Amino acid sequence: MIVAMQDQATEENVQQVIERMVELGFNVHRTTGTTQTILAGVGSPDHFDVAEFQVLSGVHEAYRISSQYKLAGRSFRPEGTTVTFKNGVVVGGNQVTIMAGPCSVESREQILLSAKQVAAAGCQFLRGGAFKPRSSPYSFQGMGLEGLKLLREVADETGLLVITEVMEISQIELMLPYIDCFQVGARNMQNFNLLRELGHVRMPVLMKRGIAATIEEVLLSAEYILSGGNYDLMVCERGIRTFETYTRNTYDVSAIPVLKKLTHLPVFGDPSHGVGKREFVPAMALASVAAGADGLLMEMHPNPDKAMSDGAQSLFPEQLEKLVAQLRQLAPIVGRTVA
Amino acid sequence: MIVAMQDQATEENVQQVIERMVELGFNVHRTTGTTQTILAGVGSPDHFDVAEFQVLSGVHEAYRISSQYKLAGRSFRPEGTTVTFKNGVVVGGNQVTIMAGPCSVESREQILLSAKQVAAAGCQFLRGGAFKPRSSPYSFQGMGLEGLKLLREVADETGLLVITEVMEISQIELMLPYIDCFQVGARNMQNFNLLRELGHVRMPVLMKRGIAATIEEVLLSAEYILSGGNYDLMVCERGIRTFETYTRNTYDVSAIPVLKKLTHLPVFGDPSHGVGKREFVPAMALASVAAGADGLLMEMHPNPDKAMSDGAQSLFPEQLEKLVAQLRQLAPIVGRTVA
Amino acid sequence: MIVAMQDQATEENVQQVIERMVELGFNVHRTTGTTQTILAGVGSPDHFDVAEFQVLSGVHEAYRISSQYKLAGRSFRPEGTTVTFKNGVVVGGNQVTIMAGPCSVESREQILLSAKQVAAAGCQFLRGGAFKPRSSPYSFQGMGLEGLKLLREVADETGLLVITEVMEISQIELMLPYIDCFQVGARNMQNFNLLRELGHVRMPVLMKRGIAATIEEVLLSAEYILSGGNYDLMVCERGIRTFETYTRNTYDVSAIPVLKKLTHLPVFGDPSHGVGKREFVPAMALASVAAGADGLLMEMHPNPDKAMSDGAQSLFPEQLEKLVAQLRQLAPIVGRTVA
Amino acid sequence: MIVAMQDQATEENVQQVIERMVELGFNVHRTTGTTQTILAGVGSPDHFDVAEFQVLSGVHEAYRISSQYKLAGRSFRPEGTTVTFKNGVVVGGNQVTIMAGPCSVESREQILLSAKQVAAAGCQFLRGGAFKPRSSPYSFQGMGLEGLKLLREVADETGLLVITEVMEISQIELMLPYIDCFQVGARNMQNFNLLRELGHVRMPVLMKRGIAATIEEVLLSAEYILSGGNYDLMVCERGIRTFETYTRNTYDVSAIPVLKKLTHLPVFGDPSHGVGKREFVPAMALASVAAGADGLLMEMHPNPDKAMSDGAQSLFPEQLEKLVAQLRQLAPIVGRTVA
Repeated sequence: MIVAMQDQATEENVQQVIERMVELGFNVHRTTGTTQTILAGVGSPDHFDVAEFQVLSGVHEAYRISSQYKLAGRSFRPEGTTVTFKNGVVVGGNQVTIMAGPCSVESREQILLSAKQVAAAGCQFLRGGAFKPRSSPYSFQGMGLEGLKLLREVADETGLLVITEVMEISQIELMLPYIDCFQVGARNMQNFNLLRELGHVRMPVLMKRGIAATIEEVLLSAEYILSGGNYDLMVCERGIRTFETYTRNTYDVSAIPVLKKLTHLPVFGDPSHGVGKREFVPAMALASVAAGADGLLMEMHPNPDKAMSDGAQSLFPEQLEKLVAQLRQLAPIVGRTVA
Repeated sequence: MIVAMQDQATEENVQQVIERMVELGFNVHRTTGTTQTILAGVGSPDHFDVAEFQVLSGVHEAYRISSQYKLAGRSFRPEGTTVTFKNGVVVGGNQVTIMAGPCSVESREQILLSAKQVAAAGCQFLRGGAFKPRSSPYSFQGMGLEGLKLLREVADETGLLVITEVMEISQIELMLPYIDCFQVGARNMQNFNLLRELGHVRMPVLMKRGIAATIEEVLLSAEYILSGGNYDLMVCERGIRTFETYTRNTYDVSAIPVLKKLTHLPVFGDPSHGVGKREFVPAMALASVAAGADGLLMEMHPNPDKAMSDGAQSLFPEQLEKLVAQLRQLAPIVGRTVA
Repeated sequence: MIVAMQDQATEENVQQVIERMVELGFNVHRTTGTTQTILAGVGSPDHFDVAEFQVLSGVHEAYRISSQYKLAGRSFRPEGTTVTFKNGVVVGGNQVTIMAGPCSVESREQILLSAKQVAAAGCQFLRGGAFKPRSSPYSFQGMGLEGLKLLREVADETGLLVITEVMEISQIELMLPYIDCFQVGARNMQNFNLLRELGHVRMPVLMKRGIAATIEEVLLSAEYILSGGNYDLMVCERGIRTFETYTRNTYDVSAIPVLKKLTHLPVFGDPSHGVGKREFVPAMALASVAAGADGLLMEMHPNPDKAMSDGAQSLFPEQLEKLVAQLRQLAPIVGRTVA
Repeated sequence: MIVAMQDQATEENVQQVIERMVELGFNVHRTTGTTQTILAGVGSPDHFDVAEFQVLSGVHEAYRISSQYKLAGRSFRPEGTTVTFKNGVVVGGNQVTIMAGPCSVESREQILLSAKQVAAAGCQFLRGGAFKPRSSPYSFQGMGLEGLKLLREVADETGLLVITEVMEISQIELMLPYIDCFQVGARNMQNFNLLRELGHVRMPVLMKRGIAATIEEVLLSAEYILSGGNYDLMVCERGIRTFETYTRNTYDVSAIPVLKKLTHLPVFGDPSHGVGKREFVPAMALASVAAGADGLLMEMHPNPDKAMSDGAQSLFPEQLEKLVAQLRQLAPIVGRTVA
């Protein structure tokens, strides 16, 4: 931590700050300039709040210089993490993995058709919600356990892996037998109790960035899962909320290369939620892989106009097929392969 | 719902939209102008997604015109909601209610001293966290059940009511015997499973606005609790995330009069989290009441420099006392009384 | 400046950073911890870009610790600036000054009636646009010189001072004979050529915060005017752009006490543009003064429903009158007086 | 325009709205539902403000349904605009055009070397600032006329075209002899007087999106230039301001396909200002072209560590060369060619 004192700070102010730093476990180095005193705290005690120093008398500014995440940081595993699934599917490395499917499981017929189309397009994972977080209590809330069973059944039939969203601690046990990967939605990225529990399961997790989460906060939330012992973790950009409303969210493509630099975890993009309108999804999927994404999570529906949720952002099956073909061509330009 | 067709839309496009509207349960009225056709859907089916229409062929724009919340809307109870607590404390109406206390319960000594100071300043509620949502897994996570017991004990000793945060469904039963009001934190405003459960308890709830939640979303989340049958609900502005970083968040004071217009629920302000720096809290507390707040939730600590969390935004006891005195003078100018 | 090196930084990396710091004119103090090296640059050369250091090899983070504004900083004039106008009107100190009037000058009749109503309500300044910045080239663009003459005429008739917006360097000379204060609009807060010219005139300036300007940038823009020698400057919060669209902008009330701390310049609030809807303007005007504003700039129109611009946010004359009466009561609670 | 009345609106309220709509030139069609009345205004008068209707008594919501831009809209030229420069360079169509160079012209030597490197990498345009908008009055403000002359000289020597920023009406005449394209910077996107003047020159213009400008506002600003008669216009995404601060701005890649849909004008991307850190620029350049950009504007400096401005975001010459080679491979996948 660095504390820069105000020009007018008194020696008493300086001493008070030093005392508090020492109390927290820092070694303090002092630089006295002609106008300003700077205190550098070396060491990084776990429990301290930089904001506390910002309001001490005589302090001009205080900065934390070591990040609070440790296990999520790139330096923990410079070579990068790969996550191994059954069927020999590996996420990370030089692979680009594609996960697609409808927003919600709606019926056996709908999810089976979806699975066939997703498999035909060349994807590895089937997505589909059984438990749905909806802004309104009056919207469709998902098929629950029945939906999980259908997902498993049709995935096995088509050779796909299953990823689906967990919203609540009590659902974890329920879901384990039916899925290959938990998805943590944007609204739960700071549901710390849920994250902590997911740190204790033996099942991969893909965690989405919260709608207003900084990149630093994404990695702190990842730390909750990693520190519980679950290293099979992937993170996913899915759009942040800004003043621009033409798109559903502002899909922060630059978060992909930034995350690739800061963490060893595989980084996905979800352009469907990112832009919210089908016609822009292929462009943003291509942009994501061009920017270095390890994979994509996208919505596709056999009949988007009749979808019970998120139809507007779901690709038509033929769009998905064409897009995967383009991605196969694009990936090698950035040193990658679409699985 | 209104659907405005593009100038170039074909009659076939128009018919497809009409068909889908009718299918959803709308009565459709058509206006054909020289350049543009407009379709007005009358009636308000629960299950429809306006985004679905925005991407149909030939559609220029589609708007939902009825809000999705019903029980939370001002017209449901034009006279406004009041929430009655024990000790004869009533929130809402022409009262301004003040809730104060430390961020976390840290020890019996600390919380007892806090309670005495909060009571001496003239507040009605003691706040204090027993379960703490923290961005980092390595930060102090609260005293848990022990903290709840301490809160109850010192509140009874000082004649205060207890408000504290619930993070997780499994905590609800545990907390009921010790508290007078649940607080739902900003990070849980869209934890819909938790909200649904809180709709079934017989205990008032104060729900904070999420860091990136629109005012519409605040009311949709309120609808989750109300639709479960719990009408003892208050909502609370606590700052939104914007590009400005000098303050911890941007405390959206204007959300207070806007919420007062749109809903019958009492509206609180939390200037402590709103600005994050103690020195600006009194100004923003005064601003909140000037703007029409029904109450304030604020952090105060007997010794903020030693607080285990949020010390930087906690008032000194003497600041709270001075502030309450100013609020007593200010409230009558806007037709209110500080209890 | 502070440069914190990465844990893995080599001695060569460190030397390269030190060299560049010295080259720019810093005295460098080095702190070598067990894992991390920190370099503190003392002295504050005018020409350097902290971003340059953030991308040097081996650098973890770099921070500027002295602000780039000097003349605008509170420490330049700890006692605060007051601006003196004719008629004995003084802005700043313990006065709260109210400026009101229509968005645009539309006709002699309209602006004369406005002036009478503004004066009757007890305000000191008449606002009104003669040159209008409009998002669309097809909207009303103002009456120009004719509007300026009308403003002067009716202001003299009613004993008011005139404030009006300057958009363009070539308008400065034209406007000088007719006005008492230049207004720089939000869209021109970073029109640096215009600011530089306004630094050379002998006429007070009220500069609004840009729609996406940080508080630091407000003060850097102020520095352009001050460094030209014009110290009769006021700054004005008027709402920032965020994700919330119910209000026209998000009126950042907390910027008022923050600016009061950071600068000696008088700080105004413009709740009309801040919220954009008439019904919320009085609440936000009261909130602004409760938070410490030195003055208010508000839109009022004799007949808002017929206004040629911004009618939706213009107060009715009787609303303004009632509001000023409330402000007179409120101001003393925060140690101020409405003039 | 659509006006949806409140459920409780009286017939008098409805009549007042209809009257005002007719007064403005709308033909009004009325739909009376069991609970709600909807008024559709057909025709599109130039002068009206939808906000005015939002605050009329009894109004629930009012929407503008025709966009305010006409000449900028895609339907004005469905085939898309191409801009022809000397040397046979054409922007738009299936070409991807690359513009690169240093932030500022610093010396003859620096700009000549830059031009050689830009040409060697295979770009068509040399960028470089002669007049610099800087947040601080104490930063380097550019070489002015001398810089313009140097740009022209080295561009001619290397077969490049010149694009440089105009900040001020008085600079237009001065610049015309030396340049091939005006650049309007983000801070001037709503400097309407400047835009209007640029509508009257016979010189192409590339206009950047403002830091907080919606896509709609970009097109309204474009309309100022087009309505003056200058159709040689390109627009450019360059990053918007959001809560995320790890990158300088949030580079909104999705604005590229959205703009391509809404307007016929060529759409560029400026990833250098978008992310502000050199190491992420190539990834975002690739993403931009993958998303459909007609061109790129990027910063490159022969020696970024010694640049007088924006060194942190300037590519090294060898990075530019490698990037252009990758872009050449990528463009055909999305049906384009790098010139």
